[in-house]
Parts: sequence; structure tokens; C-alpha cells
Amino acid sequence: MQPIGYYQQLIHDYFTTASLQKEPLNLYKPIQYILSLGGKRMRPVLTLMAADIFEGDCKKALPAAVAVEMFHNFSLVHDDIMDDAPLRRGHQTVHEKWDINTGILSGDAMLILAYRYFEEYEPEVFRELAALFSKTALEVCEGQQWDVDFEGRNDVTIPEYLKMIEYKTAVLVGAAMKMGGIVAGAAQQDCDLIYDFGLNLGLAFQLQDDYLDAFGDPETFGKQVGGDIIENKKTYLYLKAIERAGNEGREQLLQLFASQPENTEAKVAAVKELFVSAGADAATRQAIEDYTLKAFETLEKMNISADKKAMLKTFGEKLMQRKV
Amino acid sequence: MQPIGYYQQLIHDYFTTASLQKEPLNLYKPIQYILSLGGKRMRPVLTLMAADIFEGDCKKALPAAVAVEMFHNFSLVHDDIMDDAPLRRGHQTVHEKWDINTGILSGDAMLILAYRYFEEYEPEVFRELAALFSKTALEVCEGQQWDVDFEGRNDVTIPEYLKMIEYKTAVLVGAAMKMGGIVAGAAQQDCDLIYDFGLNLGLAFQLQDDYLDAFGDPETFGKQVGGDIIENKKTYLYLKAIERAGNEGREQLLQLFASQPENTEAKVAAVKELFVSAGADAATRQAIEDYTLKAFETLEKMNISADKKAMLKTFGEKLMQRKV
Repeated sequence: MQPIGYYQQLIHDYFTTASLQKEPLNLYKPIQYILSLGGKRMRPVLTLMAADIFEGDCKKALPAAVAVEMFHNFSLVHDDIMDDAPLRRGHQTVHEKWDINTGILSGDAMLILAYRYFEEYEPEVFRELAALFSKTALEVCEGQQWDVDFEGRNDVTIPEYLKMIEYKTAVLVGAAMKMGGIVAGAAQQDCDLIYDFGLNLGLAFQLQDDYLDAFGDPETFGKQVGGDIIENKKTYLYLKAIERAGNEGREQLLQLFASQPENTEAKVAAVKELFVSAGADAATRQAIEDYTLKAFETLEKMNISADKKAMLKTFGEKLMQRKV
Repeated sequence: MQPIGYYQQLIHDYFTTASLQKEPLNLYKPIQYILSLGGKRMRPVLTLMAADIFEGDCKKALPAAVAVEMFHNFSLVHDDIMDDAPLRRGHQTVHEKWDINTGILSGDAMLILAYRYFEEYEPEVFRELAALFSKTALEVCEGQQWDVDFEGRNDVTIPEYLKMIEYKTAVLVGAAMKMGGIVAGAAQQDCDLIYDFGLNLGLAFQLQDDYLDAFGDPETFGKQVGGDIIENKKTYLYLKAIERAGNEGREQLLQLFASQPENTEAKVAAVKELFVSAGADAATRQAIEDYTLKAFETLEKMNISADKKAMLKTFGEKLMQRKV
């Protein structure tokens, strides 16, 4: 296993040499643009890392890794249209810089381009990668739809919420790692275990996102702290608070989440207080830890050296210790 | 080779039994809806027909056929959003019946679902089908982008226009037929020839669409005759007229195509007269015939019985004799 920066560089180089400078420019420029905004490239890094873990050549896993990153960026472009988001990674979103039609069509092309990367592999591997990819991509769409549906519902349960973030976010993390295993020729059981490792780490990561959005350090948290609260998003924190609060607290929360006050600071403060008094903050921290531990447990069953297990565990711990 | 109705029934039955009745309903209902609107299912019929022609089991080609139809419907859903079209096959478009976000996301899911049908095949066939599909799907996106780009340009050449309709429409017809050949295990050369047959027939068909939009019989033509003229669409007819008209006629055409008059009837009549006087109608009929003959020439080179060649030719002739 190499330092993350090594993998990131490989991915960067692959995207640079990949021939996306094509006509029609109005189709391909937006693709180059969204890819150029970078991000941490965490999903493709995990693909390369998994290939290394299973004694494969991580460079051979590059096409699969960039397929995952291409898909992730496709979903960002289309989701940003649906969320009417003006900014992505501190820059204009594609539909804002161009228009909605460009966002739709360039997104479509990215989804197709993702599949094309698998053509670098032999038929057996191609089929396995593409089938996992399709299954995962469809789940991501389903997760996005649940997310949209939940906005208009007041009776979302915690299991439903967990299913939604599993589909919308975690399955792609699991699939990214499993693809590394597939390319490396790992045993089926190990491929399934690394998928579960990624899935549970992905769930922990998303719950941590919910948590930090409310309780993160404003100094280091990239986004506006309290953004979810201002937008009345029914996150894990909120659902836990509704579940655990007394009648009075629940009533207050429901009222606050039906409001769009000018003074957002007061609202954020009030909601956070209710989260804490209901014990939702502690319950969320507990859930994050549970999923992280669940991820680590699957590591134990894997047919890799103790050394490698320790490296994956360290990586997971670092990921979950982030304050941003 | 069977009657078209036989193939259509097979496709209908496959879609009915296919499990698209899934949750989340807001994702899958729009997919069932657009598929239920039917249409002639010409593309998947061609896949099954090609499988039969090459002595394959046409039922084995069903998954590939419905993949093509699913993709075609995906492109209709997204194109209708981009064109702001209220109606499709006489019914509300998906984004009109639901909303734009639903159209985007359900369309995305359809594109992924199309790929999943290929999983019915063995790795070698799967890879070949999926690679052809990806190449074709990307070309369709490029064609759609050229079409959008051309709207804002006044210097589109006829070769550019032909390239656009080739990508936007004809490549999918070629690919649909080639997929039938691939599933039937036809020789590479025959697969390429049937692709060219479909491609050229697709070009002829699209040019005929342009032609009938202006010169079709209002009694039998499904759409409003003159629709392209009213919308100032730069079709083959228009580009040919611009190329062949004298200075005066060209000036008149340019002026008419810069106008949006209340009295569309007078405009349509005036434009049609200019098309005729410039000889654009005859030139378009000639181009349709040229592409049809080109399609028939590829038939000659194919390693199939004279009987089968005659059947494909009859099919092509019927297709090109339509008045609607």
C-alpha cells in the first residue's frame, strides 16, 4: 500500500492523458471542467488501494478507478441540477456555468464514458466490473430518489434513512474497493468482504457528515456549519432527536423544522440544543463508531496479511478522525 | 424471418414480464409509463430480425433488443426535457407529467438498465455488445449536442448536417442490427455489413422524415405538416434550398427562417414553394434514394442466402415507401 498522494497522482495523470479534448466541445468541455475541480478522489484511491491490498498491480486497476470517479462526477452534475446548487467545490456548477441542458447531456455522456473504461479489461473481468457497476449505479439512482421522496415526507424512519444513505453514498464506496479486488483477481469471498468494509466505512462517513454539519468546528469545517438545519434536512441527527426527545422537545423540533427564519443563527443554536438534550449527538457518535467497528470486523475475516489489515484499519481510523 | 408483428409481440411480452414494478415508485413508474406508450419498436424489431437473418435464435436476442429500446426511450425522455416538448406519442412527456428532476433521474436509471440486459450473455458476447452499445450511445449524445449547436449557427454545411443525423439517429439503427448479428454469432464482416445496412437505411429514413414533414400528406402524416418550417429547423431540405437557390430565393428563405409569423400557413406555403423552385425537394428525394440503394448494396456483399437478402430488401423498401 502506498501513501494516498501516490494514488491521487496516478489518477490525476490518467485523467490528464485521457482524451477528453474532443468535439463537440459543448459536450466535452463541461466534462473536463467538472473533473478539473478535483476533490479528494477518495473513491478511485480506494480502488487502487484495494488492488494493492490484494497483491494486484494497482496501475492495472486505474481504468476501473477512473470509471468510478467518472460516475461519481456524473452523479454530482445531475444531482446539482436537481438540487439547484450554484456551487460545487467552490466553483460554479456545470448547469450554472453553462445551462441545464448542457448539464443533462454532458452528465449522460459521463455515465457512458464510465462504462467505456472497463473495455480495457478481458471479457470475464469486464463483465464482472460492468455488472457490479450497473447494480451500484442503479442503487445510487434509487438512493437519490429516496432522498427526494423523503423531503416531502414527515414519517421517515431511521431504517429508511439508513437505507437511503447506504444506496446514495455507501454502495459506491463498497463497489470502488471491490473493483480493486476484482482486477487484482482476489477470491470471491475477499471481494465481498472488502465490499462490506467499504460499505460500512461509507455509512460511518456519511453519518459523520451529518454530525459535523451541526457539530463540526466552524474554523475547519469547509461548509457553513448548520447548513442542514437551515435547510430543514431530516438527517440522522434530526431523526434520532425526534425519536428520543420528550413530547415538548419533539414539538419544538417539528416547529423549528417547519420554519425558514431570517435569523438562522438562533435557529441553528436552538436545534443543536435540542439535539444535545435529546441525546441525538451521542447516539450519532455511537452509530458512527458502530459502523466503523463493523467495517473493521470484516477486515478480520479477510485472507490478507496482518500487516495489510493494520494498514486498512489505520486508513479507516484516519478517515473517521477528520474534523472537517 | 417472421412478420414484424411477431417480433413486436415478443418485445411487448418481454417488457411486460420484466420486473420494472419496483420501489422507489417515483423512479420506476415514469419508466413503465414511457415504455407503455409503445411506438413501433422499430429498433428492437431490427435486432431480432438480424438475429433471424443470421440463423440465430431471435429469442436469444431479446435482451439485446430491449436494451436498445430502453436506451432509445432514455434518449427520448432526456431529449424531451431539452426540447421542452409537452407531448410524446400523443401523451404527456415524462417531465410534463412529473417534473424535470424525475425526467433526469428516471432517464439515468433507464440508461443503466439498458446495460443490465447485456448481463444475460456470456462474457465474450457481453463485452462485445456493451462496447458497441457504449460507442453508439456516446455518438447519440454527440449527435444531440451537434443538433443543439446547429440551432445557434447560420453556417451549417450539408456534410455537417448529415454527420449530425448519422450520430443522432442512424448509428443506433446500425447498432441494433449488428447486435442481432453478434448474438447470432455471425462473422465479423457480416456484422459490419449489417451495421452499414442499418446505418444507411437509418440515414434514408431520417431524410425522409425531413421530407415528409414538409411534403407529406396532411391526411396521413401523424404530425403537423410544416412543423419543421414553423420552427425554423434547418433540415436537409432547407440546407439544400439555401445551397441551390439563387440570390433572391436565398434571401427570401433566410428572411422567412428568421420570422415567427402568426400566419404559419402562409409561411409554410411560401417556404415550400421556395424549396420546390430551388429543386431541394427533388434533391432530397434523390438523397433518400441514394442512401437506400447504398443500404441495398451492402446486402449484396453479405454471406446470407438470396432469399434472406430479398426479405431484407423488401423490408427496406416498405420502410421507405411510407407516406407517414
